[in-house]
Amino acid sequence: MDKTVVRELKTIVGTGALYTDPEELSCYSYDGTGRIFLPECVAFPQTAAQISSILKLANLHNFPVVPRGAGSGMTGGSLPVRGGLVLVTSKMNRIREIDPDNMIAIVEPGVITGDLQEELKKYNLMYPPDPASLKFCSIGGNAAECAGGPSAVKYGVTRDYVIGLEVVLPTGEIMQIGVRTEKGVVGYDLTRLFIGSEGTLGIFSKLILRLLPLPEAKTTFLLTFPSLSEATELVSQILRNGIIPCTLEFMDQTAISIVRNHIPNVLPDETNALIILEVDGSKAHVQRQEQNITNLLDKKEIVYTYTNDSVKRSELWQARRSISPASFTLKPYKISEDVVVPRSKIPDLVRFCEKTAHDLDLIILTFGHAGDGNIHVNIMVDDENETELANGYHAKKLLFEFVVAAGGTLSGEHGIGITKSEFLPLEIDPTTLKVMQKIKTLFDPNNILNPGKIFPET
Amino acid sequence: MDKTVVRELKTIVGTGALYTDPEELSCYSYDGTGRIFLPECVAFPQTAAQISSILKLANLHNFPVVPRGAGSGMTGGSLPVRGGLVLVTSKMNRIREIDPDNMIAIVEPGVITGDLQEELKKYNLMYPPDPASLKFCSIGGNAAECAGGPSAVKYGVTRDYVIGLEVVLPTGEIMQIGVRTEKGVVGYDLTRLFIGSEGTLGIFSKLILRLLPLPEAKTTFLLTFPSLSEATELVSQILRNGIIPCTLEFMDQTAISIVRNHIPNVLPDETNALIILEVDGSKAHVQRQEQNITNLLDKKEIVYTYTNDSVKRSELWQARRSISPASFTLKPYKISEDVVVPRSKIPDLVRFCEKTAHDLDLIILTFGHAGDGNIHVNIMVDDENETELANGYHAKKLLFEFVVAAGGTLSGEHGIGITKSEFLPLEIDPTTLKVMQKIKTLFDPNNILNPGKIFPET
Repeated sequence: MDKTVVRELKTIVGTGALYTDPEELSCYSYDGTGRIFLPECVAFPQTAAQISSILKLANLHNFPVVPRGAGSGMTGGSLPVRGGLVLVTSKMNRIREIDPDNMIAIVEPGVITGDLQEELKKYNLMYPPDPASLKFCSIGGNAAECAGGPSAVKYGVTRDYVIGLEVVLPTGEIMQIGVRTEKGVVGYDLTRLFIGSEGTLGIFSKLILRLLPLPEAKTTFLLTFPSLSEATELVSQILRNGIIPCTLEFMDQTAISIVRNHIPNVLPDETNALIILEVDGSKAHVQRQEQNITNLLDKKEIVYTYTNDSVKRSELWQARRSISPASFTLKPYKISEDVVVPRSKIPDLVRFCEKTAHDLDLIILTFGHAGDGNIHVNIMVDDENETELANGYHAKKLLFEFVVAAGGTLSGEHGIGITKSEFLPLEIDPTTLKVMQKIKTLFDPNNILNPGKIFPET
Repeated sequence: MDKTVVRELKTIVGTGALYTDPEELSCYSYDGTGRIFLPECVAFPQTAAQISSILKLANLHNFPVVPRGAGSGMTGGSLPVRGGLVLVTSKMNRIREIDPDNMIAIVEPGVITGDLQEELKKYNLMYPPDPASLKFCSIGGNAAECAGGPSAVKYGVTRDYVIGLEVVLPTGEIMQIGVRTEKGVVGYDLTRLFIGSEGTLGIFSKLILRLLPLPEAKTTFLLTFPSLSEATELVSQILRNGIIPCTLEFMDQTAISIVRNHIPNVLPDETNALIILEVDGSKAHVQRQEQNITNLLDKKEIVYTYTNDSVKRSELWQARRSISPASFTLKPYKISEDVVVPRSKIPDLVRFCEKTAHDLDLIILTFGHAGDGNIHVNIMVDDENETELANGYHAKKLLFEFVVAAGGTLSGEHGIGITKSEFLPLEIDPTTLKVMQKIKTLFDPNNILNPGKIFPET
């Protein structure tokens, strides 16, 4: 990057808010994929106007700008694959407003999702989306990827809670879109077009979020099974019995064992699969659901425990959330997928993964959001073992083909980024792909904002 | 329209499915606005391929194509304001699939919303959006306008339930977009871009809907008040007390009296305002909510009755849904708005309407979805009385200015169409408007699909 450009960038954000040293740059060169791309510089703007100036400069001098929240993405969305500037939103981290009467919050993109959730508890309110990384991921990144989480089975995903945005377009203009009311249908729904656009259409500088009342009570069940298929076959039965869980997660045997090594004494010893099932709502509703659930489980002779204790619950969730980091004790590299299948197809998906692991001599973990069919499939490999790595990628391809044939989708919450872009045509028809690319060009004629993402290289 | 074109249209849809007689055309010249625009012909395609052929022909011969569901729209979305062909979806009215395990339905656009809801009851499932016109409006039209209804306060609007679409683009290409799973974040969210685009970006030929379990129980409260402001001030208090109603509707004194004349003996005699409040869910939850509500109402000395009886409930809803048709007993023409304000601003909005009615010597009804701040403001006028009509339009302008200043939006569920397009710049900034217009041009370069809608004339 030209020295004049660097000087201009320092004028825009201030000297202390622009990094150019390789040591500093390296901290912003990776994300949850484990892949590394060194940026040419890193900027920490504090206002929409600064973001706008950076983008205008980028169009003038034709350098890529890659927005980055907390860098916890799983598909490379925040990686500067074509160099250029990484724009970090961590200094834009104020909660600007919480309006309890109208149940909305206005936040800057760098606010940590878990911090917002803690703050909202003081008002007896909640912002439901709860990605596993909630203690360190940011709302802006969540919105860019349309993050989900265990609560999605009842509460939906990020798109269901972001009702308005301030967006800086790739060309530098600042737009206010959406509403601060529950309803709104004025003009095209640009808000949802931006949600899940993976930082390729604009940079969020403010988000308007709708909130819900914090549920009065919650009960957490832990179910154990002699086999994974018995666990996954229960999922549809739970939902068919009129039980609406706020969480319905499962873990396979490998996931359980790595978590047990990582965090001892939380998960039961003798089990080949488990389900975490939670119900929330008014006390009366939760009690009634407890009865329904215990009746169903007793009838099916399923072994379970349950608790209302918040300490025990958070231990259990710490265990659940540690699967992803703990998985690296198995193999140094992971091909991490978050496919979705119609709920009724989960048992088929799990059998497919078991068979593929066996056929290709791989370790494949399956766990995640059984309630909405969004299954995390982690193909663990030694990336220095060429054959294993090739088998891993072959398994990924087979997985995607299976999922699309089953009426599912390649990603439920991680997005496409760079790790799935070559497979996009498996799911998206050529006409639709062309329309999406035209939309990208409409917003970003010089392709300076997060280039090389989502779309397959041509 | 050229005779050759008409002949070609008959070849596409079949002779019986193309109307050209003025008597037949006039049936498709109006909608809920009371405005009339005669089309040049009306076609009833039965497949996506036929829609595609019509659109290709329209591009070739440069005539407008205006999609129409049941013609129940409130803003002129289905009116052929520039002539051309009206494309009616009433022959594409099959429910193609109901999948109870995965809680989805696949339907054609002409399916009547209420018919689908009745059919789903057999499976113990529900499709929540419930516009007042549900007995005759169509799902395709609902999706085009992003229709809402009383249940939106708890369940959201059409965009929250349409997860996938088959769309015929204005240029004739057919796209499959979205998913048939609960989650999905692959590529840009074109599905939500189409929802609420008012038939200007494409014509839906198939919709994939997510469903919910039918709630086990429901209780309906009818609250009466000595004044409208006492009613509207209760709204926020209900929600602050942890009560999540599935309906929270209010009616002002004028609305009550016209309904009483229209359908006697359902609404109470001596009241100046009323609220319909419903809670649904499991039996235990509903019982608990009943207690909470009666405690709150007793404490505030509010007069109320409540019922679990489904016959009494449907009588009450018939009364509520008759407000709009019954309003024409007051004046022959209505300026019908569906503005939204933050819930806490409802009392201000109602006072503003009362004052405006008084100042301009008008009858203004206010009623509707208090729970989400989406208030139907009906300005009743004699359209042959020039002064009154002018005052009515002046009141509308004042209303929109008030709403935008209050942090609200011009439309919660009716859309912009032709009746609000000149006011769009009040709410949408110039940059955003330009982006929306560019999106329109991207999809419809020859501006043949539903021209003259949403955007102000320039």
